[in-house]
Amino acid sequence: MKSVIFWLLESSERKHFAQRFVNSLIIGLIVLNSFAVALATVESYKVIYGDIFDIFETFSVVIFTLEYILRLWVCTEKEEKIYKHPMTGRLRYILTPFAIIDLVAILPYYLGAFVEIDLRFMRAFRLVRIFRFASNSKTLQALGNVFKKESRTLLAALLVMIIVLFTASTIMYYFEKDIQPDKFGSIPEAMWWGVAALTTVGFGDSVPISVQGKLLAGLIMILGIVIYALPAGVFASAFVRELRSKSFFDTWNLVAKVPILKNLDASAIGKIVEILEPYEVKVHQVIDTTKGMYFIISGVVEITRGDESKKLSEGGFFGEMETLFGGKRNVIAKATTPVEFLILRPKYFGEFLEAHSGIREVIKKEVENRSKA
Amino acid sequence: MKSVIFWLLESSERKHFAQRFVNSLIIGLIVLNSFAVALATVESYKVIYGDIFDIFETFSVVIFTLEYILRLWVCTEKEEKIYKHPMTGRLRYILTPFAIIDLVAILPYYLGAFVEIDLRFMRAFRLVRIFRFASNSKTLQALGNVFKKESRTLLAALLVMIIVLFTASTIMYYFEKDIQPDKFGSIPEAMWWGVAALTTVGFGDSVPISVQGKLLAGLIMILGIVIYALPAGVFASAFVRELRSKSFFDTWNLVAKVPILKNLDASAIGKIVEILEPYEVKVHQVIDTTKGMYFIISGVVEITRGDESKKLSEGGFFGEMETLFGGKRNVIAKATTPVEFLILRPKYFGEFLEAHSGIREVIKKEVENRSKA
Amino acid sequence: MKSVIFWLLESSERKHFAQRFVNSLIIGLIVLNSFAVALATVESYKVIYGDIFDIFETFSVVIFTLEYILRLWVCTEKEEKIYKHPMTGRLRYILTPFAIIDLVAILPYYLGAFVEIDLRFMRAFRLVRIFRFASNSKTLQALGNVFKKESRTLLAALLVMIIVLFTASTIMYYFEKDIQPDKFGSIPEAMWWGVAALTTVGFGDSVPISVQGKLLAGLIMILGIVIYALPAGVFASAFVRELRSKSFFDTWNLVAKVPILKNLDASAIGKIVEILEPYEVKVHQVIDTTKGMYFIISGVVEITRGDESKKLSEGGFFGEMETLFGGKRNVIAKATTPVEFLILRPKYFGEFLEAHSGIREVIKKEVENRSKA
Amino acid sequence: MKSVIFWLLESSERKHFAQRFVNSLIIGLIVLNSFAVALATVESYKVIYGDIFDIFETFSVVIFTLEYILRLWVCTEKEEKIYKHPMTGRLRYILTPFAIIDLVAILPYYLGAFVEIDLRFMRAFRLVRIFRFASNSKTLQALGNVFKKESRTLLAALLVMIIVLFTASTIMYYFEKDIQPDKFGSIPEAMWWGVAALTTVGFGDSVPISVQGKLLAGLIMILGIVIYALPAGVFASAFVRELRSKSFFDTWNLVAKVPILKNLDASAIGKIVEILEPYEVKVHQVIDTTKGMYFIISGVVEITRGDESKKLSEGGFFGEMETLFGGKRNVIAKATTPVEFLILRPKYFGEFLEAHSGIREVIKKEVENRSKA
Repeated sequence: MKSVIFWLLESSERKHFAQRFVNSLIIGLIVLNSFAVALATVESYKVIYGDIFDIFETFSVVIFTLEYILRLWVCTEKEEKIYKHPMTGRLRYILTPFAIIDLVAILPYYLGAFVEIDLRFMRAFRLVRIFRFASNSKTLQALGNVFKKESRTLLAALLVMIIVLFTASTIMYYFEKDIQPDKFGSIPEAMWWGVAALTTVGFGDSVPISVQGKLLAGLIMILGIVIYALPAGVFASAFVRELRSKSFFDTWNLVAKVPILKNLDASAIGKIVEILEPYEVKVHQVIDTTKGMYFIISGVVEITRGDESKKLSEGGFFGEMETLFGGKRNVIAKATTPVEFLILRPKYFGEFLEAHSGIREVIKKEVENRSKA
Repeated sequence: MKSVIFWLLESSERKHFAQRFVNSLIIGLIVLNSFAVALATVESYKVIYGDIFDIFETFSVVIFTLEYILRLWVCTEKEEKIYKHPMTGRLRYILTPFAIIDLVAILPYYLGAFVEIDLRFMRAFRLVRIFRFASNSKTLQALGNVFKKESRTLLAALLVMIIVLFTASTIMYYFEKDIQPDKFGSIPEAMWWGVAALTTVGFGDSVPISVQGKLLAGLIMILGIVIYALPAGVFASAFVRELRSKSFFDTWNLVAKVPILKNLDASAIGKIVEILEPYEVKVHQVIDTTKGMYFIISGVVEITRGDESKKLSEGGFFGEMETLFGGKRNVIAKATTPVEFLILRPKYFGEFLEAHSGIREVIKKEVENRSKA
Repeated sequence: MKSVIFWLLESSERKHFAQRFVNSLIIGLIVLNSFAVALATVESYKVIYGDIFDIFETFSVVIFTLEYILRLWVCTEKEEKIYKHPMTGRLRYILTPFAIIDLVAILPYYLGAFVEIDLRFMRAFRLVRIFRFASNSKTLQALGNVFKKESRTLLAALLVMIIVLFTASTIMYYFEKDIQPDKFGSIPEAMWWGVAALTTVGFGDSVPISVQGKLLAGLIMILGIVIYALPAGVFASAFVRELRSKSFFDTWNLVAKVPILKNLDASAIGKIVEILEPYEVKVHQVIDTTKGMYFIISGVVEITRGDESKKLSEGGFFGEMETLFGGKRNVIAKATTPVEFLILRPKYFGEFLEAHSGIREVIKKEVENRSKA
Repeated sequence: MKSVIFWLLESSERKHFAQRFVNSLIIGLIVLNSFAVALATVESYKVIYGDIFDIFETFSVVIFTLEYILRLWVCTEKEEKIYKHPMTGRLRYILTPFAIIDLVAILPYYLGAFVEIDLRFMRAFRLVRIFRFASNSKTLQALGNVFKKESRTLLAALLVMIIVLFTASTIMYYFEKDIQPDKFGSIPEAMWWGVAALTTVGFGDSVPISVQGKLLAGLIMILGIVIYALPAGVFASAFVRELRSKSFFDTWNLVAKVPILKNLDASAIGKIVEILEPYEVKVHQVIDTTKGMYFIISGVVEITRGDESKKLSEGGFFGEMETLFGGKRNVIAKATTPVEFLILRPKYFGEFLEAHSGIREVIKKEVENRSKA
């Protein structure tokens, strides 16, 4: 019983239908709660649908409470040793960031009777929990990795930004304090202008009006371009690199399914994997053969040249490659089942063929055979 | 008749004069309609030119209606089987996004008598149709491909943005609701501020005024740099990559026209294609010979060295390359007809010559011959 | 006389002192005029310094007129044939963009008596002329090239932006026209909002207030990130590439001055040029030897190891390379004259040594000799 | 005594505890002063905590004065000859930018009695001093290098921006001066709008209202995207490149500690260094073995395959590599001490193995041994 619930709620692999179903329900309820909390703050909706919001809140909190208790109960099933102990393990679990968010989401409801302030809107913060459910997403993992790897660089960029911000705001305070005491009456107030200027947001609620203030602002705004580019450039570039290296292993596993490729030795596969691209098409879709050479991993493709047509399945290959060896053009390829491919883009043809003369011969012969037909 | 109209309106290749003419007329009319719709909303123009706008509208709608009926009639000529059936095929065509836009553009005119609301401005939406006409543009195709390929990454970036937006807006609502109930009176209203801050647009119509609100806003705006960089960086980087790989095949076809290059085997051509760049000059233009080595694909170039001059045509080559083998400098090259080239940039000289010693010898001899002359 | 003035004013190479002097004077006068025009529009300065501005204006216009007449006179000396004819050549010159700007800058002064409107501020437009003077700048040339090369891509990006802008503004007009007829009363007025939103400028003078308007605006602002990234990414990436390829030839010419490198054959030089970096230090400057291997092109460097010291001149080399072959560390290198180098960065050591075993041996021996000493 | 103080305050290497302690104290005091200066400008805090601020100010200025005098005293200990002379050396030191900032931070306090204006807030500018303390940071060094290297390009980008700004503002002045004389009454005032538009900040305090003004503004804002991308793109791309080349030498020193790698010759190490990545894990952390091949530099890792487990220490290697040679998967690696690694990412497997067949054999045998076990 306990391990089943653990498997349903906390298992890191979520392949079984029941797991997906339970998790989808929870995600759905979280998203709906966020909507409900947001809409309940709109006066006009509150008046009309107030009861529905209340009922939904009670219902959600009950479910969330149940979920919280269950997670707390089964957390000792986790692989990590620190959670194994029935008492200290559970205490440790309670102090994990996600468990705190879960608690924060339900607690205000129960405290409603004792506390004056209405904190029930905190239910909405469970939205952050979606990151936990989406933790299988490659993109989000890549995002996390980039934040970890580049944290020093990002902090240094932040340090530069803060020093520029502070210095500029101090000078601006000195320039504007007597003219606009309501907006630049203190350095922290001047920094509110500075943040808006440096991040290029520019709300415009606080703007210098003295000549020297405007000159300084102009300088800071132009300098801001470079200061803005720093973290943005580092982050974007690291993120793109991270994403590309992520897809490497997925491709590797696919290469092993293509007969013409799988007999290569390890180092050759290592090279090929980098230049192949996985790709999927739906049933009945027409495939643009000019985009590269296609190796079929699963499914059936029908190749039509003029009147003749032929079916290729797992391990077959076709595409623009043929023109290299004098094959016929104007080929129409159509998926007769859903098909998975690996594509070799034309820009890698030369590199690929030169390195693997064996493969080259196989392809050449195959193309000649097809041309004769 | 039917196939001629299909060929005029819907053919994917538009090379014939008649096709271009018809399509240009339609594009022109669409653009003019967009202008007319926009200007007709300006009160002062409406008063003066109202009649002209009305006549132009009637004229345009008649043409568009005719076009719509013709497209519907000939759609059975399309290659795709699903459009072949006279009834269901046409129904399917009606439900394609572009056909719906076409209908939306003309329908309000006819419904004008029955419906109260004036929806005739919807004619302007046909502007989107220009994407259909421009679908041959490599850049727009690349754009479409990038959207398809990177959709998961963009969605993940969007998810991060939405969660940050929602969380920040919820807290901001809590900070500001009592001070500015007109602007932060509900979470959705606070989100209007949040979107403006995170996208760095910063309209400034809704700005926090409490100290804690400004602190949170400052944090979010700085975090916004990174969140902004995510989709922007992914998209820009994928777009640049896509554009580069697009031009590969165009170059390939040109290489086959240069005698010195075309005898290379396929894998060598694959390599060269990647480092050559197609280029065109107008008649009488002077060519900057220091920019690389030029292979002439079509046209005639006049090379002048001091007093001597010489004409090179298809298959000839010249340029900075000569300096490598001790050729003369200060060469003036001038196009005597419009000329198409392939350029080999200096940074690839080494790579190119090393790989193809045969070509190297040919070039060396040629340069020595020229120097003797 | 005529050719001397041509050489002074229009020569494309500006190496002689007299040329530089004349051109600097003109640039200075242009910049000063821009300042004068700008400051003369400030009421308070005009009142006090009005006379000085007037005198300076008369003086400048006289000089500019003289310059214009001289340029017109000598333009027949230009290399291009189309300017050779005394009459038609000069007419052609008058119609070049820069000549038109020159005329526009002086004409309003003379027309002042006849025309009512004060257009004398147009003198300021001569600032654009600085691009002509700066046309030797590699960066500005690269900028121009990128604009030319990427014009299609930039136009496609612009097309996408305009269609999105027009469509969004049309819908926004429909949403807001009745609520804010002063700001969204027509589609062109709504487009003013749209441009501010899509370019992330967000002035905030025109902002939707209806719920559906804000929803649409939010969508457009998020979509705007991607639309903004398109031209920015393409342009930045093309610009960076262009800049890097520009510096290739400058380095090439320097390599020929280093004995150890210049005997390599052409293809090897082609490779090395790409990984070497030109660098200059001032006299008495201490050189950070850990940054790579230094090849001296001109000047003298004093190398100190503990107590010994040695002078290296043209063709000598030193730096972190020595550690590879067991040389001593803690070397202090100091320029005893201004010195020009080529630097080989550590990340290219492997590549470089493997490719050129001859060079490798020379370096190894040299380092061993030094270590013995 | 003097050299000890020099060592504490000015030594470029700060590894000893005492050095770190003293420098941390100074940094902390600088940061606290910045906070104090900022908060002291807020009226409400000033009233309540005014005395504390005053005491803290006196205390800080005393410390800073002491520090300034000590630095001035010991500056003759610096390596650079120009500071050696007791008089002229100290004078030179006083004129260095950081010494001026130090003086500016304390002087206003002493001048308070003589000068009317309150300049004591200048203490806050000592925040810039943090750059000096952080000068060991690789990121900040890289930032400085990029500014130096790319200064020409950045200046050219700035020139383009200024000319576009000036021209646009001049035209805008002409369009708007009669309608909004308070905001566009002079060219400098129009430039305030222009800077906000070109940097995409868009405060919105000064916005064109004429039709032609809005058209021009729209154009400039769209052009602004490209002008903004120029310095941002150049800077971000140069910064990313600089950061990557920085880490080269650190890795080199680590490679020498891995037995299987250190016997390679210099050129081979040069290649490997580029593809290895340094990495650290804390004690008890589980290592994701699918991320590449790990070479242990220091520390102990426990490898568990099913029931067997094995300890690897300095010089050992493990990871996804094994799958290449048919090793077992599902390996759990856990650090039993803090561990330093070099990681070889999967995308470099092919390249690495092909180049070093010796290493390949060693790895293969090792994997076979492990599989047998």
